[in-house]
Amino acid sequence: MQEDKRIDVLDHGFVRLVDHMGDDAAIVQAARVSYGAGTKSVSDDEGLIRYLVRHQHTTPLEMCEVKLHCKMPIFVARQWVRHRTANINEYSARYSILSNEFYLPELEQMTPQSAQNKQGRSEAVADEDVGLMLEEVREELKLASEDAYDLYMDLLGESDSAKDCGFPGISRELARIALPVNYYTEWYWKVDLHNLFHFLKLRMDPHAQWEIRVYAEAVAKLVQPLFPIAYRAFEDYRLNAVTFSGPAMKLLRGLLRGSDVDEYDIIGLNKLAEGFGVGKRELDEFKRALEL
Amino acid sequence: MQEDKRIDVLDHGFVRLVDHMGDDAAIVQAARVSYGAGTKSVSDDEGLIRYLVRHQHTTPLEMCEVKLHCKMPIFVARQWVRHRTANINEYSARYSILSNEFYLPELEQMTPQSAQNKQGRSEAVADEDVGLMLEEVREELKLASEDAYDLYMDLLGESDSAKDCGFPGISRELARIALPVNYYTEWYWKVDLHNLFHFLKLRMDPHAQWEIRVYAEAVAKLVQPLFPIAYRAFEDYRLNAVTFSGPAMKLLRGLLRGSDVDEYDIIGLNKLAEGFGVGKRELDEFKRALEL
Amino acid sequence: MQEDKRIDVLDHGFVRLVDHMGDDAAIVQAARVSYGAGTKSVSDDEGLIRYLVRHQHTTPLEMCEVKLHCKMPIFVARQWVRHRTANINEYSARYSILSNEFYLPELEQMTPQSAQNKQGRSEAVADEDVGLMLEEVREELKLASEDAYDLYMDLLGESDSAKDCGFPGISRELARIALPVNYYTEWYWKVDLHNLFHFLKLRMDPHAQWEIRVYAEAVAKLVQPLFPIAYRAFEDYRLNAVTFSGPAMKLLRGLLRGSDVDEYDIIGLNKLAEGFGVGKRELDEFKRALEL
Amino acid sequence: MQEDKRIDVLDHGFVRLVDHMGDDAAIVQAARVSYGAGTKSVSDDEGLIRYLVRHQHTTPLEMCEVKLHCKMPIFVARQWVRHRTANINEYSARYSILSNEFYLPELEQMTPQSAQNKQGRSEAVADEDVGLMLEEVREELKLASEDAYDLYMDLLGESDSAKDCGFPGISRELARIALPVNYYTEWYWKVDLHNLFHFLKLRMDPHAQWEIRVYAEAVAKLVQPLFPIAYRAFEDYRLNAVTFSGPAMKLLRGLLRGSDVDEYDIIGLNKLAEGFGVGKRELDEFKRALEL
Repeated sequence: MQEDKRIDVLDHGFVRLVDHMGDDAAIVQAARVSYGAGTKSVSDDEGLIRYLVRHQHTTPLEMCEVKLHCKMPIFVARQWVRHRTANINEYSARYSILSNEFYLPELEQMTPQSAQNKQGRSEAVADEDVGLMLEEVREELKLASEDAYDLYMDLLGESDSAKDCGFPGISRELARIALPVNYYTEWYWKVDLHNLFHFLKLRMDPHAQWEIRVYAEAVAKLVQPLFPIAYRAFEDYRLNAVTFSGPAMKLLRGLLRGSDVDEYDIIGLNKLAEGFGVGKRELDEFKRALEL
Repeated sequence: MQEDKRIDVLDHGFVRLVDHMGDDAAIVQAARVSYGAGTKSVSDDEGLIRYLVRHQHTTPLEMCEVKLHCKMPIFVARQWVRHRTANINEYSARYSILSNEFYLPELEQMTPQSAQNKQGRSEAVADEDVGLMLEEVREELKLASEDAYDLYMDLLGESDSAKDCGFPGISRELARIALPVNYYTEWYWKVDLHNLFHFLKLRMDPHAQWEIRVYAEAVAKLVQPLFPIAYRAFEDYRLNAVTFSGPAMKLLRGLLRGSDVDEYDIIGLNKLAEGFGVGKRELDEFKRALEL
Repeated sequence: MQEDKRIDVLDHGFVRLVDHMGDDAAIVQAARVSYGAGTKSVSDDEGLIRYLVRHQHTTPLEMCEVKLHCKMPIFVARQWVRHRTANINEYSARYSILSNEFYLPELEQMTPQSAQNKQGRSEAVADEDVGLMLEEVREELKLASEDAYDLYMDLLGESDSAKDCGFPGISRELARIALPVNYYTEWYWKVDLHNLFHFLKLRMDPHAQWEIRVYAEAVAKLVQPLFPIAYRAFEDYRLNAVTFSGPAMKLLRGLLRGSDVDEYDIIGLNKLAEGFGVGKRELDEFKRALEL
Repeated sequence: MQEDKRIDVLDHGFVRLVDHMGDDAAIVQAARVSYGAGTKSVSDDEGLIRYLVRHQHTTPLEMCEVKLHCKMPIFVARQWVRHRTANINEYSARYSILSNEFYLPELEQMTPQSAQNKQGRSEAVADEDVGLMLEEVREELKLASEDAYDLYMDLLGESDSAKDCGFPGISRELARIALPVNYYTEWYWKVDLHNLFHFLKLRMDPHAQWEIRVYAEAVAKLVQPLFPIAYRAFEDYRLNAVTFSGPAMKLLRGLLRGSDVDEYDIIGLNKLAEGFGVGKRELDEFKRALEL
């Protein structure tokens, strides 16, 4: 249990490997219990693991566990916790006082709302005036965060001024409500390998918020060496896989039967897509996936 | 709660709709809570539901529930129960005596082990002698099943002979161990729509055992009219969708950039696949999916 | 699905019944599937439901679902979400802008940290000076919360000053990090009756934070009329039940065998407890539960 | 991962420890992340673990995992699998042929249905004639089980007679339906310590079927040395704990305020119970728990 690899993330956060159970061999071992003599034909372990991941036979992956110590802003924790099939022990601000640590984004992350992506950010604006304004609001965010902690201390009766007045403070569970969601929390997070891969698939996705994506990437970096074969299978068959709908498959078969796609008349593609019931947005994704 | 649609399955089984919560509108309602004003651009409900299913935003589907009463052979129940995110009340043979009903497969189901598919059956053998032998073993299975129930009754002390001897019988929980897994059990099964679709995806698959597949098809038939838009989205984006691995996507892009695939030299395709890291089995699946 | 009972909670929150599936009769119906003829002896439905709850046969309760629309401060949502066996659609501040609504505790809730209870608050301090100081910090909390929203608007580029400067704003997903955890969020929460009772057991407990306790009480008030018999059984066998450890049971049996407890020498009780392996803290709980 | 402690159970079954993650110290470590400086007052680890278990703070226990290889009759597996929060890789009779091993109960287990306990068995009948009849039905069960395997081999086309006839056999997935539920299956079972304790609580209970109880006891024996402190806390606060309902607590307080219980007029107790709303069956349990 003496693992202690740690990767720093954001300005005060980290992901640290605390413990794990199993390895690539353990996946194979569990699979061979299920399939018995029936797996003889898949002679090597790598082939078997890749077969399992490709066909979503996920239970042998569930036989492995990873336990991580993570420190992240509350708003990141709020997304992370939605992965329900996992175990969590989070630092409790009812029992103890939170540290004075908050996330202050770098300027390059402070970009406008994306026009296409309702849930994301766009590229930085290359404009000197905007750059100055960004520096200004970033400073405001910094000061507001510091002020929030001062208020937290006041409420707790822990600030010098509170102590001077003899203010007894209010309970920890209530005082904490003054803190913004960029404050850091931490937890132990334990998850099986199948659900960890699912977490990575969703949170390493370009649509995931950048701040949780860097955590997912750190988790991946810690986990990959523990299960190198399974991780590669995950990359090939999950992370970099593309799913085409029934209608999109018809379109794809049509294209493959057709003539050279490089020369494909783009108006023709749109019409073809329509005919197969592939909508405009889905067609955009289709073309992006196939680099058409 | 007064629904009572029922579909008979196999020789004594059925699936019966007991109750459900929600409909297509309930999915939209839940999604609009999540996305707030951000969903305005998706003007119609069908578009929103299809968007949710396409992008695996599954939580709004979880807001709907379906409760079914199912009767099926024990070996089917044993596969079904592995879907853990569901609620089950199964008939208990510790409390009550099981009925004398067992599954006897039709001759057309009694086909040899598949050579390709380790877990499945192949086509029927068109041979008169084999046909006669099949009738014979089917009769043996029938008699053995009947004998098992007689033994069950003996063990319970419920048979005439046991009563005549004054045999007090043994407990129900132990007597039942004499019964084979083709005996029928029944249960109430409640599941949310997202997990129901996952069940259908796995159990309507051609690789699923035929006997559970017919149950999945009956479930689908009962559920489709309750959520017609969501069901169609499920068909397009899950049931009939095809996923290509990272390497297979490279191969696919290569093909689309290439010349007419109809004329593609098949040796060339194998070599191309190898170059992209697509294995032999995966290539077979690739060609089947694309009808190459 | 046309239910619309709503209970206001805290200063801007609420719990609203959106839909439910099942009732007391549905619990009985599911239980009778499990126990078959074996339940005949429990002649009435109420007796059966109470039997189920008393013996923790919880699966028939899982056959009922309740769907609620809830609005609560983020710090309450953070505790609530830890109940994993439930379905949630939360308002997303990546898609839409949060409303300007925050929780400002009443003065009577702003009491000091409890000395005994590491995670709770104590009684109010009856001191005029402290009262004035509380009013002051409450005002500070109010101003800080308002300032946080102004900053949020600035970051979004939605404030007048931002608009005047032509500041394009930053993405919603990042701007929200300025908001404290007393800001309100909302969600649809769907849960089966067994897990709902578990939630109530934990969150109606005096050790639960007062702010989530008032939500649990509102949930109870909405759910009780839907399942009156099951709810009463829950009150008797779960909510108001007391569990004694193995050692405490020995102590209890010793007391019952002993002479009049009213006259019990208290030093004697402590020694007796020690002898049975009941620690000091557990003995305190023991005496409180038995009103000794 | 080189653990290999194995305990034989029933006539052909076993439980074998394959791997585990964590120990008592790991529970403490996770709890201290949650409670931070707030746990300082609980100075020793044992006190902290006992506190966690007593107050059902179960998440630190979830930080430990146990992986077991188990072989048991199908009817035992059918009860076991209902514990949903666990990971399973079961031997698949679709991939491979089951071994010729079935459970044949010892005579002392073959006792009549319990009159009181709808789901259980009673004491053995001390009657020579009954003894002879039991030996007879046991022999019948043995022969029937053997015949079932012969039929299985016939169906598979693996028996000598089938081979002689040139019968090609039917698929494994269908041939297996001839086997009774006393046939053995096996699986890898992985579960966290909290859910393992829940399994033990339910399956070591005297109401659990004897055949699964002996498995639960074997699991307990393997797990206890891995987590000695947590296991003792489980015994004291879960396994040997008794829960009294709200009404029963009133009755109990009444008794403790009353005079010497040894002399308690038993008719008086029944009346007293009725007055407090404690039903007849619950009163029986009450008296048994308190040895009244």
